[in-house]
Amino acid sequence: MKIWQKATDSKKEVEQFTIGRDPEFDIILAPFDVLGSMAHAHMLAKIGLISQEENQTLQKGLKEIYQEIQSGKFEIAPGVEDVHSQVEFLLTERFGEVGKKLHSGRSRNDQVLVDLKLFYRAAIQELVEETQKLFQLLILLADKHKMDLMPGYTHTQLAMPSSFGLWFGSFAEGLAEDIALLKTAFDLSNKNPLGSAAGYGSSFPLDRKMTTQLLGFADLHYNVINAQNSRGKTERTLSFAMAGLAATLNRLATDSCLFMNQHFGFIGFPDNLTTGSSIMPHKKNPDVFELIRAKSNQIQGIPVKVGFLLTNMSTGYHRDLQLLKEEIFPGMASLRECLKMSSFMLSSVQIKKDILKDPFYKHLFSVEVVNDLVLQGVPFRDAYKKVGLDIEAGNFHPDQSNLKHTHEGSLGNMCLEEIQEQMDQQIQSFSFEQINGCMNALLAKG
Amino acid sequence: MKIWQKATDSKKEVEQFTIGRDPEFDIILAPFDVLGSMAHAHMLAKIGLISQEENQTLQKGLKEIYQEIQSGKFEIAPGVEDVHSQVEFLLTERFGEVGKKLHSGRSRNDQVLVDLKLFYRAAIQELVEETQKLFQLLILLADKHKMDLMPGYTHTQLAMPSSFGLWFGSFAEGLAEDIALLKTAFDLSNKNPLGSAAGYGSSFPLDRKMTTQLLGFADLHYNVINAQNSRGKTERTLSFAMAGLAATLNRLATDSCLFMNQHFGFIGFPDNLTTGSSIMPHKKNPDVFELIRAKSNQIQGIPVKVGFLLTNMSTGYHRDLQLLKEEIFPGMASLRECLKMSSFMLSSVQIKKDILKDPFYKHLFSVEVVNDLVLQGVPFRDAYKKVGLDIEAGNFHPDQSNLKHTHEGSLGNMCLEEIQEQMDQQIQSFSFEQINGCMNALLAKG
Amino acid sequence: MKIWQKATDSKKEVEQFTIGRDPEFDIILAPFDVLGSMAHAHMLAKIGLISQEENQTLQKGLKEIYQEIQSGKFEIAPGVEDVHSQVEFLLTERFGEVGKKLHSGRSRNDQVLVDLKLFYRAAIQELVEETQKLFQLLILLADKHKMDLMPGYTHTQLAMPSSFGLWFGSFAEGLAEDIALLKTAFDLSNKNPLGSAAGYGSSFPLDRKMTTQLLGFADLHYNVINAQNSRGKTERTLSFAMAGLAATLNRLATDSCLFMNQHFGFIGFPDNLTTGSSIMPHKKNPDVFELIRAKSNQIQGIPVKVGFLLTNMSTGYHRDLQLLKEEIFPGMASLRECLKMSSFMLSSVQIKKDILKDPFYKHLFSVEVVNDLVLQGVPFRDAYKKVGLDIEAGNFHPDQSNLKHTHEGSLGNMCLEEIQEQMDQQIQSFSFEQINGCMNALLAKG
Amino acid sequence: MKIWQKATDSKKEVEQFTIGRDPEFDIILAPFDVLGSMAHAHMLAKIGLISQEENQTLQKGLKEIYQEIQSGKFEIAPGVEDVHSQVEFLLTERFGEVGKKLHSGRSRNDQVLVDLKLFYRAAIQELVEETQKLFQLLILLADKHKMDLMPGYTHTQLAMPSSFGLWFGSFAEGLAEDIALLKTAFDLSNKNPLGSAAGYGSSFPLDRKMTTQLLGFADLHYNVINAQNSRGKTERTLSFAMAGLAATLNRLATDSCLFMNQHFGFIGFPDNLTTGSSIMPHKKNPDVFELIRAKSNQIQGIPVKVGFLLTNMSTGYHRDLQLLKEEIFPGMASLRECLKMSSFMLSSVQIKKDILKDPFYKHLFSVEVVNDLVLQGVPFRDAYKKVGLDIEAGNFHPDQSNLKHTHEGSLGNMCLEEIQEQMDQQIQSFSFEQINGCMNALLAKG
Repeated sequence: MKIWQKATDSKKEVEQFTIGRDPEFDIILAPFDVLGSMAHAHMLAKIGLISQEENQTLQKGLKEIYQEIQSGKFEIAPGVEDVHSQVEFLLTERFGEVGKKLHSGRSRNDQVLVDLKLFYRAAIQELVEETQKLFQLLILLADKHKMDLMPGYTHTQLAMPSSFGLWFGSFAEGLAEDIALLKTAFDLSNKNPLGSAAGYGSSFPLDRKMTTQLLGFADLHYNVINAQNSRGKTERTLSFAMAGLAATLNRLATDSCLFMNQHFGFIGFPDNLTTGSSIMPHKKNPDVFELIRAKSNQIQGIPVKVGFLLTNMSTGYHRDLQLLKEEIFPGMASLRECLKMSSFMLSSVQIKKDILKDPFYKHLFSVEVVNDLVLQGVPFRDAYKKVGLDIEAGNFHPDQSNLKHTHEGSLGNMCLEEIQEQMDQQIQSFSFEQINGCMNALLAKG
Repeated sequence: MKIWQKATDSKKEVEQFTIGRDPEFDIILAPFDVLGSMAHAHMLAKIGLISQEENQTLQKGLKEIYQEIQSGKFEIAPGVEDVHSQVEFLLTERFGEVGKKLHSGRSRNDQVLVDLKLFYRAAIQELVEETQKLFQLLILLADKHKMDLMPGYTHTQLAMPSSFGLWFGSFAEGLAEDIALLKTAFDLSNKNPLGSAAGYGSSFPLDRKMTTQLLGFADLHYNVINAQNSRGKTERTLSFAMAGLAATLNRLATDSCLFMNQHFGFIGFPDNLTTGSSIMPHKKNPDVFELIRAKSNQIQGIPVKVGFLLTNMSTGYHRDLQLLKEEIFPGMASLRECLKMSSFMLSSVQIKKDILKDPFYKHLFSVEVVNDLVLQGVPFRDAYKKVGLDIEAGNFHPDQSNLKHTHEGSLGNMCLEEIQEQMDQQIQSFSFEQINGCMNALLAKG
Repeated sequence: MKIWQKATDSKKEVEQFTIGRDPEFDIILAPFDVLGSMAHAHMLAKIGLISQEENQTLQKGLKEIYQEIQSGKFEIAPGVEDVHSQVEFLLTERFGEVGKKLHSGRSRNDQVLVDLKLFYRAAIQELVEETQKLFQLLILLADKHKMDLMPGYTHTQLAMPSSFGLWFGSFAEGLAEDIALLKTAFDLSNKNPLGSAAGYGSSFPLDRKMTTQLLGFADLHYNVINAQNSRGKTERTLSFAMAGLAATLNRLATDSCLFMNQHFGFIGFPDNLTTGSSIMPHKKNPDVFELIRAKSNQIQGIPVKVGFLLTNMSTGYHRDLQLLKEEIFPGMASLRECLKMSSFMLSSVQIKKDILKDPFYKHLFSVEVVNDLVLQGVPFRDAYKKVGLDIEAGNFHPDQSNLKHTHEGSLGNMCLEEIQEQMDQQIQSFSFEQINGCMNALLAKG
Repeated sequence: MKIWQKATDSKKEVEQFTIGRDPEFDIILAPFDVLGSMAHAHMLAKIGLISQEENQTLQKGLKEIYQEIQSGKFEIAPGVEDVHSQVEFLLTERFGEVGKKLHSGRSRNDQVLVDLKLFYRAAIQELVEETQKLFQLLILLADKHKMDLMPGYTHTQLAMPSSFGLWFGSFAEGLAEDIALLKTAFDLSNKNPLGSAAGYGSSFPLDRKMTTQLLGFADLHYNVINAQNSRGKTERTLSFAMAGLAATLNRLATDSCLFMNQHFGFIGFPDNLTTGSSIMPHKKNPDVFELIRAKSNQIQGIPVKVGFLLTNMSTGYHRDLQLLKEEIFPGMASLRECLKMSSFMLSSVQIKKDILKDPFYKHLFSVEVVNDLVLQGVPFRDAYKKVGLDIEAGNFHPDQSNLKHTHEGSLGNMCLEEIQEQMDQQIQSFSFEQINGCMNALLAKG
């Protein structure tokens, strides 16, 4: 039941060990495997390695399998090694010898590579969409709370006046920037490896530009060794992008846990979103944010695992690469969940009003008062000295509500439109519509 | 001698501990600090916080200091805390009170941030240039050795025919792809943080778009908290980009060490580029490639150190961020050195000719022979069986030199022009000339 | 169905997110949870918080549940939060109010901590046993192949004569040393946290020494905060120990993949333990060793994930700690599997005989010849020069089989007994028998 | 000037690149190199490879060099490759040919290995001593503040009453536990690699047990390949031990930064140990603790860099190993500095008194009150309900000072003697005195 199978049977221990968790990941790859095969068959027909009739049979069969996958009816039969073999066996079972011709001019190496690239492309789209939802919520919150002041900290020490709007807005702009790493990972995922075979190309006159176009790839990995080396590099780059987004969520969660602490008490959530104790009424444990913090830390650790799998390894496929799936697939799911739960929680966030009116915070305003004097013409040095002496003498009673920050990005002028514009441009650059259009055309054509 | 100094002196132990290795990094930042100050002074004059005369004095003084830095005469005096203080002290010493006005409307937080961004921008340019040199050499080598066959491996097992041209070319395309991460880091470095002050903006009516333009930044970090948060995110992203490039060099070095092993013996170098033993004449230790392999591993570890410094930290400046310099500055220097030494070594590489003519390698050609039969009309399954039987019977004697790979990216059609085109586009996207033009204009204007 | 449950229901999203993968890990912890409860109940009876009758009821009920767990009949009912709750609900369902008294004087924090410690202790025992099996096989192989010479490499360059015996023996001694880190992790796991409650102790007069003794712990974490902090520290230390062992397996696997390469061809395995290609008869892919190499790399990455979860976190339980299980539990299973598969493969290893008799390797013997001359009275410098000249003139024809290495640890004197003695001492230091005796006594008494 | 030098000169670029930072580390290794050579010479004399007179000359010469090193007069001359060559050149310059005989029977590989082991042993002793100082201070502080209550947190939420004594004590016990990893690293460092030569032993009849004894090693690495493999393993294990200690300091620093935040305000330091602002009088930036937090994070990243350098590498020396020094040497210095600064700061710590008397904290006492009722005979369930209702009705007014925690490790019974005993036993296990006695005897004998 295995393509490379020898006369002697592989011992069961070896089989179990080498298959590992692949079946659970192969089910995820199944629809992409079929799409890759559709494009490959069209190309084989064009270069004459199969006939047009054979191609039509294959397209029909692949489309059937695609629908079985979509409706949850597809499974990898016991004893079948992987998704690629399962698809081939189904085709052969249903249509005879033509099923075996599908593998001409490709190797399992470039077949799985194209599956992975197509999957990453789709999974990145999901991450982008969840990021966008959280971004829009943060923009709304920033705007809603633009006048709600809170303290700003440096060194975890009270420092300057800030606002909830500014705080929410900082994460919005942060996410808009994080998308750039995802785009870099997407661009690597959006290059066609098909035709690189086992990493050294083929003596068949393959038309790699045709499959590139059919699968909606922006370009191809030209050099066939480089195409094979992109396995690993794509995952490394993706893990960097995931770590970048996770780091932003980590800070959001860290701040939230701190601001829910009773000494701060700046933000709160409805009871049913926190956990507590019937005997300690003021305890509202921020479990969701603690887990976002923790999961975003796990995600930040993924690049190291990917790096260990890849480093000091010579050119050419190694079985080690199979385990990249164990790091990336669950990592992407976890990141998507963290994005979702961040939106879920923040859509119910309650903020404390009028925090800075408490005299406890009056020293936050010392720099404001100095600047005011300067703007009224007092030399900075004299203004600074006067305020310092007032504070020392206990005569410092600033206006703790009226802030006149006007420059770009400050609490009086948050530039939310400009930040929105950045995000919109980033998202357009992915050309998701065009790609999805190609995939639909391939399915329609098949 | 310290701006925040209190009546009581900080104990010497605290001072030594907190300053750490900053003096060595501050010298590197000095020219960028001056350029940032020039832009800031122009802006202060425009919004009326200093007079035009004061601005001219400051520009003159800053230009002098810039020239002292360039000629190696600048140093941070003992007891002066950092480069920012040294510049301010020099200005005040030379021009009086006006020197102190320069600090209006900014904090050391956004001052050092702008220094770092300008330095990263320049240091990335150097990395891009070294990458480009290595790339061009690889393109030349790929072209020169396009007909020189060598074995291709999968699982570190002999697999298929490959060529030195293909091998060199794979790294060329790899580098062209790696530049994308550097560009992402560059874009983050190419955003103006000036005006974010301590992370919460200022009540002065700063014109942040003006300094953005003067310093050649492509855009600004709008939200002031996000601008402060970019300290750390910029370094994280930069460390990812460095790790990506390092991973490619790591593979090149790993292959080279393996191919210099006597069992392979595929590549060699002049005696004066290897180390050896007078008593073991065949020993040519690949120390340079071993160290590139090792240094590229150190660089791949940098993101973890950066990650540990940043994770689980709340919004706002923390002194911890100072130590990012200890990871990034030497890491960038090391990566540049690895790129240089890779070019240095490969410019003398000697390759073994006619490797695949040895019958030892004949099984590499089995798939070629099968494909040939298929192209002559023999059904794949029959061709495969025939070749398998020939091999088993000892009747397999393929032509071990004549390969007909013609598809895109294969050894007969390496698409070096397309790969060159990719690299050229990447490099143009940095707009280095325009940026350097801005910097020169700022110096000329000052 | 949750102990801390409030009037309002936690939203389903929160519940799913916070429970995560705990159910799969809780089943693993179940037997240890019951054992911890047995000890706790005996202690509560001793200090008078429950009566002797109540204790007997609890012991009977817990023993029943223990047997249900052992026979696979135990499961966590839908809607029940965790294993602790499930056990308590079963007891209450079967025996009434007494079931609820079991929780007096403890919190879920120290309850899960004691479960984890007991589980780690048992899981480490399994790792030690697998390590010991592999060790004994390596000792056998070292002895069997002590006269089978092979080349030794430095810089991946041919360097000096070595032997298969020496190579196998190096891993045996390596494993004997690796056990020391496991022992350190074991010692941390073998300390009693019970009685630390939520990390701040209890106002009940608990007898922590009694539970320490009943559960066979070598000692207790005295300070209750430190007991809580041991969650995380125990996992970190365990991850270090796992990484240490994994690094040794990684080298064994790396060597094996290299030595199976056709240019080396030093070791081989029966066909059914490798994967191959019917058309490339000489290809025997080392998939098992590649996956051991890869899995040992994943394991070496675990400390980073653990580190990210823990760093920059203040004293006291955080929900983040729950995710440590996701790193450690599968990691321990993977390491055990790698140890097993290493033994499985090596028990069939075939080695190439008489490698060094090939003149290809003659320069390996140059230092031997120099040393021989020195021992015959020729000054080192003259001997060295003579051999160098002989080599240069092509007159170097050493005896390539007769080696006279006699010192400790060299190929003629491998000191396998001493290495065995080291391993034996390490293993005795764990006192597994005594601990298992305590656990059996607790079950018998219960 | 290089021992392996060939006719042609190594290009300058290669030389600079391969030497790297070694000169700065070699000066640190110099005294240990001399001690290793003294032991080696005695052994050579015993087995007859040098005469007793030659040995006496070498011992005299080595002792002179040792004293030059101690008095700061030793340096590595320009153009000399490393410390080993410098010592050999000095001996030859001063005493003629005998200087060259010292290298008989060893290679630079085992020579540098023994230097490193001796250095690590000494550097670990310094770390242990600094850890012990901090431990003793923490024990004193725990005892001094045993009655000073503070809140205990879970989920960063107010949870239960705790005390400063308990908090300080938790770090004391933590350090006592951390020493175990250092001991494991010490044991690996305390094994003799000398005689393993380049990793494959020697045909000379070396007496490795003699050098083991002379250098005070507890044992030897028997297998010569394993001895060579200990380079890397020793550093990995040491990096784990350093990371373990660093993690404890990280938590101490994290807590300290949080407790210095104005909302907590639990601890403070004299003005000259913090940094501040003349205009924000309440700002006392915890720079020292922030930097300890950051440096302990850098140290926690070292195992990853070490791991990347070592993984997927075949048996035998590789030049890569040279770079381990760049990670370990500065890391050990940084950890020692963090330990020192922690002691320095804590010796001036000021704690806030009577925190828990504030009604703000009354809910911390709810569990205490329930337990009190239980101890008075009220069933737990009824007591719990009563307190819950009291709280809800605003009738909960507990005694906020009188706590009756009596069990082992609780705030009323901190078991400082037991913790001290643990630390004392750990430290005795290192046998530093015996080792230092051996080194002194070797110098005296020389």
